[in-house]
Amino acid sequence: MVLVEVMPKAELLDPQGKAVAGALHRLGSSAFDGVRVGKRFELHVVGPVTDAVLAEARQVAETLLANLVIEDVVSVREATDLEARA
Amino acid sequence: MVLVEVMPKAELLDPQGKAVAGALHRLGSSAFDGVRVGKRFELHVVGPVTDAVLAEARQVAETLLANLVIEDVVSVREATDLEARA
Repeated sequence: MVLVEVMPKAELLDPQGKAVAGALHRLGSSAFDGVRVGKRFELHVVGPVTDAVLAEARQVAETLLANLVIEDVVSVREATDLEARA
Repeated sequence: MVLVEVMPKAELLDPQGKAVAGALHRLGSSAFDGVRVGKRFELHVVGPVTDAVLAEARQVAETLLANLVIEDVVSVREATDLEARA
């Protein structure tokens, strides 16, 4: 399994994150002063995760999974055994 | 920074993941046979990430960030230096 993580670009407002941060504040949680919300994709792979598969995942991430105008691909990596089971 | 990862429950359909998998297939990408789409939250912490902060993050994850009827909290952990910089 390959994991792809996509987050809104740091220089952009993140209304969903702002909403969560506001809710946390109203609920009395003071440990956190900012929240950003992104996406986590699990790509299930046919066969073993080779370098070619990771390269393809990287290409897919940048063309299909993330909108590079407003988002960054933070990470493309093979899932650990623990992550693959979750 | 604390990272919280939330995914749709395995036993539920994930229409967004199905749509991505269909698009991959149509675009000729044959390495992947399934996609699931979840969320990744970055919680920025005031001060150091202590056990108390992680416990609070876990509670926030299960009450506010995930809808436990249809989603699982996959992971609540301190971000590595590399992840925090991204």
